[in-house]
Amino acid sequence: MTRTVGDFGLACGILPAGAKNSITDVPGVRVGHCTLRDGDINTGVTAILPHDGNLFRRKVTAAAHVINGFGKTVGLTQVQELGTIETPILLTNTLSVGTCATALIRDAIRQNPDIGRATGTVNPVVGECNDGPLNDIQALAIAEEHALAALADAHDGAVEQGNVGAGTGMSCFGFKGGIGSASRKFKLDAGDHHLGVLVLSNFGRRGDLVLPDGRRPDPRQTTEAERGSIMIVLATDVPLEHRQLERVARRTGAGIARLGSFWGHGSGDIAIAFSTGNTVDHDETRDLVPQMTLNEARIDLLFRAAAEATQEAVLSSMLSAIAFTGRGGTHRTSLADWLDGQSRAG
Amino acid sequence: MTRTVGDFGLACGILPAGAKNSITDVPGVRVGHCTLRDGDINTGVTAILPHDGNLFRRKVTAAAHVINGFGKTVGLTQVQELGTIETPILLTNTLSVGTCATALIRDAIRQNPDIGRATGTVNPVVGECNDGPLNDIQALAIAEEHALAALADAHDGAVEQGNVGAGTGMSCFGFKGGIGSASRKFKLDAGDHHLGVLVLSNFGRRGDLVLPDGRRPDPRQTTEAERGSIMIVLATDVPLEHRQLERVARRTGAGIARLGSFWGHGSGDIAIAFSTGNTVDHDETRDLVPQMTLNEARIDLLFRAAAEATQEAVLSSMLSAIAFTGRGGTHRTSLADWLDGQSRAG
Amino acid sequence: MTRTVGDFGLACGILPAGAKNSITDVPGVRVGHCTLRDGDINTGVTAILPHDGNLFRRKVTAAAHVINGFGKTVGLTQVQELGTIETPILLTNTLSVGTCATALIRDAIRQNPDIGRATGTVNPVVGECNDGPLNDIQALAIAEEHALAALADAHDGAVEQGNVGAGTGMSCFGFKGGIGSASRKFKLDAGDHHLGVLVLSNFGRRGDLVLPDGRRPDPRQTTEAERGSIMIVLATDVPLEHRQLERVARRTGAGIARLGSFWGHGSGDIAIAFSTGNTVDHDETRDLVPQMTLNEARIDLLFRAAAEATQEAVLSSMLSAIAFTGRGGTHRTSLADWLDGQSRAG
Amino acid sequence: MTRTVGDFGLACGILPAGAKNSITDVPGVRVGHCTLRDGDINTGVTAILPHDGNLFRRKVTAAAHVINGFGKTVGLTQVQELGTIETPILLTNTLSVGTCATALIRDAIRQNPDIGRATGTVNPVVGECNDGPLNDIQALAIAEEHALAALADAHDGAVEQGNVGAGTGMSCFGFKGGIGSASRKFKLDAGDHHLGVLVLSNFGRRGDLVLPDGRRPDPRQTTEAERGSIMIVLATDVPLEHRQLERVARRTGAGIARLGSFWGHGSGDIAIAFSTGNTVDHDETRDLVPQMTLNEARIDLLFRAAAEATQEAVLSSMLSAIAFTGRGGTHRTSLADWLDGQSRAG
Repeated sequence: MTRTVGDFGLACGILPAGAKNSITDVPGVRVGHCTLRDGDINTGVTAILPHDGNLFRRKVTAAAHVINGFGKTVGLTQVQELGTIETPILLTNTLSVGTCATALIRDAIRQNPDIGRATGTVNPVVGECNDGPLNDIQALAIAEEHALAALADAHDGAVEQGNVGAGTGMSCFGFKGGIGSASRKFKLDAGDHHLGVLVLSNFGRRGDLVLPDGRRPDPRQTTEAERGSIMIVLATDVPLEHRQLERVARRTGAGIARLGSFWGHGSGDIAIAFSTGNTVDHDETRDLVPQMTLNEARIDLLFRAAAEATQEAVLSSMLSAIAFTGRGGTHRTSLADWLDGQSRAG
Repeated sequence: MTRTVGDFGLACGILPAGAKNSITDVPGVRVGHCTLRDGDINTGVTAILPHDGNLFRRKVTAAAHVINGFGKTVGLTQVQELGTIETPILLTNTLSVGTCATALIRDAIRQNPDIGRATGTVNPVVGECNDGPLNDIQALAIAEEHALAALADAHDGAVEQGNVGAGTGMSCFGFKGGIGSASRKFKLDAGDHHLGVLVLSNFGRRGDLVLPDGRRPDPRQTTEAERGSIMIVLATDVPLEHRQLERVARRTGAGIARLGSFWGHGSGDIAIAFSTGNTVDHDETRDLVPQMTLNEARIDLLFRAAAEATQEAVLSSMLSAIAFTGRGGTHRTSLADWLDGQSRAG
Repeated sequence: MTRTVGDFGLACGILPAGAKNSITDVPGVRVGHCTLRDGDINTGVTAILPHDGNLFRRKVTAAAHVINGFGKTVGLTQVQELGTIETPILLTNTLSVGTCATALIRDAIRQNPDIGRATGTVNPVVGECNDGPLNDIQALAIAEEHALAALADAHDGAVEQGNVGAGTGMSCFGFKGGIGSASRKFKLDAGDHHLGVLVLSNFGRRGDLVLPDGRRPDPRQTTEAERGSIMIVLATDVPLEHRQLERVARRTGAGIARLGSFWGHGSGDIAIAFSTGNTVDHDETRDLVPQMTLNEARIDLLFRAAAEATQEAVLSSMLSAIAFTGRGGTHRTSLADWLDGQSRAG
Repeated sequence: MTRTVGDFGLACGILPAGAKNSITDVPGVRVGHCTLRDGDINTGVTAILPHDGNLFRRKVTAAAHVINGFGKTVGLTQVQELGTIETPILLTNTLSVGTCATALIRDAIRQNPDIGRATGTVNPVVGECNDGPLNDIQALAIAEEHALAALADAHDGAVEQGNVGAGTGMSCFGFKGGIGSASRKFKLDAGDHHLGVLVLSNFGRRGDLVLPDGRRPDPRQTTEAERGSIMIVLATDVPLEHRQLERVARRTGAGIARLGSFWGHGSGDIAIAFSTGNTVDHDETRDLVPQMTLNEARIDLLFRAAAEATQEAVLSSMLSAIAFTGRGGTHRTSLADWLDGQSRAG
């Protein structure tokens, strides 16, 4: 069940949300999950597909921003050099990135038999967080079939949030974390545009969380080192060039900081952004190619949307997550339960 | 007059401040100001000296982090390549960076007659913000003598804050901004250590400011584009290598974001960090040189200190600044006045 | 007198040169010099103007690449963030960058009285090399008028090379260096396009130079540390986005390496690239703006042109430079003289 | 059979080689191969082990430099953030990086059962080149057992070069490429030190290769786009901090450029460098830790060594490689054969 910040009387900023308040408000974007829950195995895969065509043949403009690089995301070097993404983006647990990368490679070859033969190779993009506290991560339970299942599950409806897909075993600020999503809508040159964010939330130390209204759900500090992470996938239909996308991706860090995080040492905090407004044809024959870009003087609108949607997506992941007992009986409470309790007490 | 967050019942985080709650809590660090106020001229220079010796001969380990690069800071390329600072750091208005750089060069030559002859050249470091709304910035009123006056004024006492030095004509979140400082203290291997921050605050859109207790002093949004900036100078006596210093410098961005900023497009948000714990001898004769570094597993302590001290230094700059009418009658109110009014109303 | 590699039977690569074999083969680009020679003063300013209009109002797409950052170039932070250049580019000696930056600021204000008032500030771009061995660099002989004189001298003819402008007192691989330029031409979508390079050559250790035919003009190694630098300005009329321009700018490093350089520690080796094919209107009113970009699969052509033109521009600077005796009687021989001697001996 | 540049009367620079002229001249470094040759399958894995202990518990200082990022190397984000490597480095074909990463993860867990439980996760480092022209890369023939076999094969003798391990199916400048290695030795503070390089050479367009003596083995240009890559692993026993290592790693690009490359668009040219002179204890209990660093004024020595050893390692890979017919009858001639032919003709 997805519960939103609005259900609890909270608000992240001032821009309006899209119809689904999900990354899928960006036309063409689809999200799918594969969830594994079996004893100490509590993990999964989440897939984000930038459009419903052949991504290798029609790449989307993309950029990445590393907020804190204690992370094992695969594929960023090429994204930064070429400014494109040419596969779905998969999110999973830290030790399964290799398997998910291989699954994306095989899937791309299936759709494009010329890969590695008549044309170049393919750059899979896989992000991760460490769900070790709630999942037996050493079991390497994710197989290629689970990655394919997440791809097959993809749809453009509102994103299922909380303990699902890659978010199954994640923790956030000492509470249960997981998958969250939010979006913002605005007008440019009289046209409707969207910016959406999906997070895999698994970061933050107990005691540091600050709600938008200033409340601190659990101010007790812990001495335990943070070993979490957050993956942020940002999509927009505004046509941006790579440099602009990187600037927008950077603002997701502000959204996290507003929650009380200082981007902890042990946390791989990584944002991957793409624009469906500028695509690159793998088989382009023209030498010079027209594209649209954003008037840079308007980019504050997207910066604000990125910060707001990221902050809200994290909260949404925690509000949608239910209390959970994982590997070896480790328990995570739900932020929604805490807020419900406050409401009853109030 | 310096007023602190504590004077208004606010707190930024959980770590204790140093004795002066200033960047000068880091032993050896000195700060000086030169203030110009004459009709439409409302500007100045602020100098930060990492130690009281010859900086060219004994450089401090340093790093920079560009939060948003719409800025004209001088000297960062070499700081990032070599990991050292070899002059005082000057802060001034945007159009005076050239003059201040020349002043630092002349001052370095005076102290080191071998520069550009028997040894290499010198890399001046000068940061800036645009005080155009309150200062006739086109007048280029800063002369080399003003830079030298700021250097001569340097002392290791509590930093004078608010409308002083480079902060004379600055604005922040629609209020009067300027110079602010704060520090944090902590223990490492049983020894006392400090991290201090000095800011030149000139950023943020009216309506976006959030206080640590969740209050929004002026929630009216403006449509005016942000053309401000913030310069952040961070000092510590913890011996850090360049990579670690850059990681710490990065966390100043979290401190700003906690105040409601999303690092606006038109704002040059730049952090310069140095450690007095590792110095580099210009005339070193050994091939291999011992130094101390921080156990990376302890770096969260400095990350937290950097975020907290930055957030507090900005607030302190605004709380210490008094209402001001500048060029062409443009007026900026004081955040302290607003809080005093709230207190009286409450 | 400009002498080219062809005059000595040498060739740098396989692409044809433009009509002037200068950066001015890129339509609209102009270059001017101001030369100071008076006793121990042997220095100057060189100006590169991307087009002949108001650069602040119609900015050119730009990028920088730092090959080795032991340098004091001014303005790169904003170039990298916003991807534009909005002033002429000045080259001068290391200790005069502040003065030249101030001159560019004043010149921009003169043309645009709204700077720092109704609109934002301006980002001057100034590169430098250390001509200390041949010039009394401590004299800070460059005044703002010299910068303005270089701007006033700008024309679109073949670039004057060798001991001229900023190149007056420069040294390269132990020989006399200075200003050099070269260009390459090619077709894209059946249209003619150009890529041109201008260098201020002041790098390389005696003994390391390798000519394109494998000869080493002076194989004696020296133990003296390198304290030189090279500034590389690259222009093209191919419409490139910032990311593509940065990739092209990076290849100038290959051109230098082919000459035997390993980008020495003490050398500030910095490339600044701009495209006249994509300009940005400061007063743009549309939210979304069309631009052209290069099909990335064609970019090897520009990579090759950048490496070839850089290698040739450096050689051209040395071949055009004449033997020179500077400050304190320090002498630099001419590579052209050495080659002429070889030719006579052969 | 390994044949060196000296066997053909060539020399790369002026510094002396180590005893084995291999990366294994750096004490503790070991290299192993696993070679697959079966019909259209011509590929393999090469392993570089920085020392013979538990790498996760005693990490080596490390840095990476991306010369051109059209590549799929795994693990760089964390290497750049933390400045350490904590697994062996594996090299393989492009589509097998996922499998090799998983093999490294399993191997690290086997040695450190606390990974993902009582301590954090592990960051595998895997580099790759595209051997598609000579290998049926779509077959994904590399299994985890092959990665383990390369690890088990590791020894500290002279590196086996040419068509071996990951180099089995690689091509370079139109000739057969593969594994190459070279080293340089020098003194610092009277102690002996080494810098060694191992390359997986698979880059360069036919017609662009230039030998150190200026000869061009095959000047015919091809119109075929480059789809190769080069992985460069650099090791040294000089204690360097991360920033210094990155500077040294950058100079490998100069070594490649000297061979005539301009770092082609389609080529993933990536350098990974580590120092065995500074290690990081995973279980360090001190807050402040002593380490040695290099006097920066001596770093030109390492820059020169890096450029020379990289240039030589590539040539050595080609001179050691024998002519080869791979997938679908595609043939690559041997540079050694060409030089032998020249020698007989001369």
